[in-house]
Amino acid sequence: MKNNIKRRDFIKRSAMAGVGIAVGSVALAEEVKQKLRTPAKPVPAVKPMEKVRIGYVGVGGMGTAHVANILKIKGAELVAVCDIIEDRVKRAQDMAMKAGQPKPEGYFKNEHDFKRLCQREDIDLVYNATPWEWHVPICLEAMNNGKHTATEVPAAYTIDDCWKLVETSENTGKHCIMMENCNYDKVEMMILNMVKKGLFGELLHAQCGYLHDLRAVKHDMNGEGVWRRAHSMQRNGDLYPTHGLGPIMQCMDINRGNYFDYLVSFGSKTRGLHLYAENKFGIDSPQAKEKFVLSDIVTTLLKTMTGETIVLTHDTSSPRPYSRDILVQGTKGIVRKYPEPKIFIEQEGKPHVWDKADEYMKQYKHPIWVELEEESKGAGHGGMDYIEDYRLINALLKGVEPDMDVYDAAVMSAVCELSALSIADNGKPMKFPDFTRGMWKKKRELMVM
Amino acid sequence: MKNNIKRRDFIKRSAMAGVGIAVGSVALAEEVKQKLRTPAKPVPAVKPMEKVRIGYVGVGGMGTAHVANILKIKGAELVAVCDIIEDRVKRAQDMAMKAGQPKPEGYFKNEHDFKRLCQREDIDLVYNATPWEWHVPICLEAMNNGKHTATEVPAAYTIDDCWKLVETSENTGKHCIMMENCNYDKVEMMILNMVKKGLFGELLHAQCGYLHDLRAVKHDMNGEGVWRRAHSMQRNGDLYPTHGLGPIMQCMDINRGNYFDYLVSFGSKTRGLHLYAENKFGIDSPQAKEKFVLSDIVTTLLKTMTGETIVLTHDTSSPRPYSRDILVQGTKGIVRKYPEPKIFIEQEGKPHVWDKADEYMKQYKHPIWVELEEESKGAGHGGMDYIEDYRLINALLKGVEPDMDVYDAAVMSAVCELSALSIADNGKPMKFPDFTRGMWKKKRELMVM
Repeated sequence: MKNNIKRRDFIKRSAMAGVGIAVGSVALAEEVKQKLRTPAKPVPAVKPMEKVRIGYVGVGGMGTAHVANILKIKGAELVAVCDIIEDRVKRAQDMAMKAGQPKPEGYFKNEHDFKRLCQREDIDLVYNATPWEWHVPICLEAMNNGKHTATEVPAAYTIDDCWKLVETSENTGKHCIMMENCNYDKVEMMILNMVKKGLFGELLHAQCGYLHDLRAVKHDMNGEGVWRRAHSMQRNGDLYPTHGLGPIMQCMDINRGNYFDYLVSFGSKTRGLHLYAENKFGIDSPQAKEKFVLSDIVTTLLKTMTGETIVLTHDTSSPRPYSRDILVQGTKGIVRKYPEPKIFIEQEGKPHVWDKADEYMKQYKHPIWVELEEESKGAGHGGMDYIEDYRLINALLKGVEPDMDVYDAAVMSAVCELSALSIADNGKPMKFPDFTRGMWKKKRELMVM
Repeated sequence: MKNNIKRRDFIKRSAMAGVGIAVGSVALAEEVKQKLRTPAKPVPAVKPMEKVRIGYVGVGGMGTAHVANILKIKGAELVAVCDIIEDRVKRAQDMAMKAGQPKPEGYFKNEHDFKRLCQREDIDLVYNATPWEWHVPICLEAMNNGKHTATEVPAAYTIDDCWKLVETSENTGKHCIMMENCNYDKVEMMILNMVKKGLFGELLHAQCGYLHDLRAVKHDMNGEGVWRRAHSMQRNGDLYPTHGLGPIMQCMDINRGNYFDYLVSFGSKTRGLHLYAENKFGIDSPQAKEKFVLSDIVTTLLKTMTGETIVLTHDTSSPRPYSRDILVQGTKGIVRKYPEPKIFIEQEGKPHVWDKADEYMKQYKHPIWVELEEESKGAGHGGMDYIEDYRLINALLKGVEPDMDVYDAAVMSAVCELSALSIADNGKPMKFPDFTRGMWKKKRELMVM
């Protein structure tokens, strides 16, 4: 698929979207006002299904892992597979047949072949794991063809596209689900469980992020390296906020009684990707001539409507151990996941001494992990990817609300553009558009609880 | 001493100081412009002294610890001691006599008795460890009476007062030194040493702060509790930025080739001090009726002129283990101090694995710690307080530049008010006043290196 994000277009769209977003600005663009006048219309209850027939788009590394999960999950049926690389489609077809299931039909004619897949009448769900710029076109095509849709993260990276996903989901009555796998991590789910049981008291503050040295991945000339590097040459913001924000957002009831109010973002110098290219390929290599704009470390502060603060970090161009920087703090205690999971609860521990989180896992392991831990063993990222796919399929089978809805997808993905706008304007606060048009004020239980 | 910080005055002064500080505002107040027209005039070289004769003001907990250090340091002579509580003065006098030194003269008539102390002709240095609101009056009085002065942290908490310290130091040619003890911590000094040797490469980002559960201290009806609690009822900003920023500022050469450009601050809900009062003293207690305004967690982002970013946290009202959250990250590696000191250097370690910092201490222990570790044993805060006092006295004895100058005191202390202004204006970026009037651009070696 082509990498034709046009920088000029991106900046133009950003500037337009910026109208009405800056905190304290009085005038809202007419288009934004219009959106705010239309009440939100969440997807109505869906009929239970006997099976969920799936068309999968994009079977590279992550997509293939999802396909492997789908082939194991009872009630899921892989009907069609699409990729621009024929061999990948064949690999997925082989996987299905080896699992004793019918051969899914393959789509690999060109980069728009997913449209033919979306037009099939025997598909309930179009699920994609494609480069970022394809998430929105595929989701829209799926919903407009009467299919539910699920997408890898982030669902979108402009405010306009976030609105398109929301409006199309509302107009078609089809789910648009962003598949944030870290919401299903064993430790994050234990933390969520403890938060909801009140062990940390009223929440005050959190930290999270995506701190992953991707220099080698981004400089790979195949696969995700190509498009990830392209984005690093065109955008300076938090490119990947959802691995951190997803779990924190659930702890803080965002869209379920709470909402993000505004954010600011700061970007550090831009060094890592260039230095890596110089060292790896030589000072005169084409890679060393590439110009990057993404700050090595992007730090974002978010404020919620009910007064919590969040520090969100994006750090993918520096030598460092992996982290998602998870920390949740309340009036009664605090938990942090990295470098090692540690917990302090005033009523439980010794003053000023962290306890190991292991000691709490036995008592507070999330019920979903109790149920699915055995079944998820061997699946991607410690099992959480399997649980994520299991929950998606089972929500559709049962006809219940999915764990994450289109408003969750939109508000988290909006951070991509809001952070870029704030950095471009020297840390100016940016207000979140209200994709729910006030519906966030209504308390709703999380489906995972 | 009285606790009469008037909230109305504070807000009024803040609003005035805010003119010309907000990033992007065009008009500068005439007063600010005038200041910027006058070139900076750092304290000229001071003649070496045979001994440093000291008047100490404020001998509560921290002051008494400093007095104990002073009595041990060769070349220091405690000439006079001042406090509003006579017994404390006597305790300090007894300490001097027990150390075989002459009895220092006592000043305890009233809260302005430090003025008589400042007028003595046999004093070289007036050093104070008083409640925050007295730091500036005592420093000004000392310098205007021809004495060098040293003060506990923060030196000031308004921009106006920061300017007063700078201008008075320049006009009198006397040093005004903010005693940031954490600059002398063993781990922080090792980090500084490693930074200056280039082990982390070019710096990109840092974290730091003061995360210390002071609920019990603030609710103590004696000593520092009284005035610390009063500030928590009147100011919402980072009340205590220097323990974190001091060491980071040295790593980043602030005032020595670099400067803070702007900051934003976010404040969380305000809960901890009130909840503590309810639990400890009862719902109907006078303490439970007190109204606090300080956010439980204040998070500040700072951007430097050379492009580094810093996350600074102030967290003194929540149950949590102690931390100063020190983290320094560069193009070649990263170090964090809390919960345990860990280091990752790309050339040294295994990918994605933190090394224990201990492994680096042998090779990179700061020369000052190599020299003074034995001598500092038993002194406050693991020895760093002794080293801090030793360095102060010895700079004056030798007639060399002190480790921290008045510009360091001003730029760090300015965070107190800038953070409050940013929070009050929903995260608006606040530009740092240039206390050095361009002098920061000049590279200077740190005296501790």
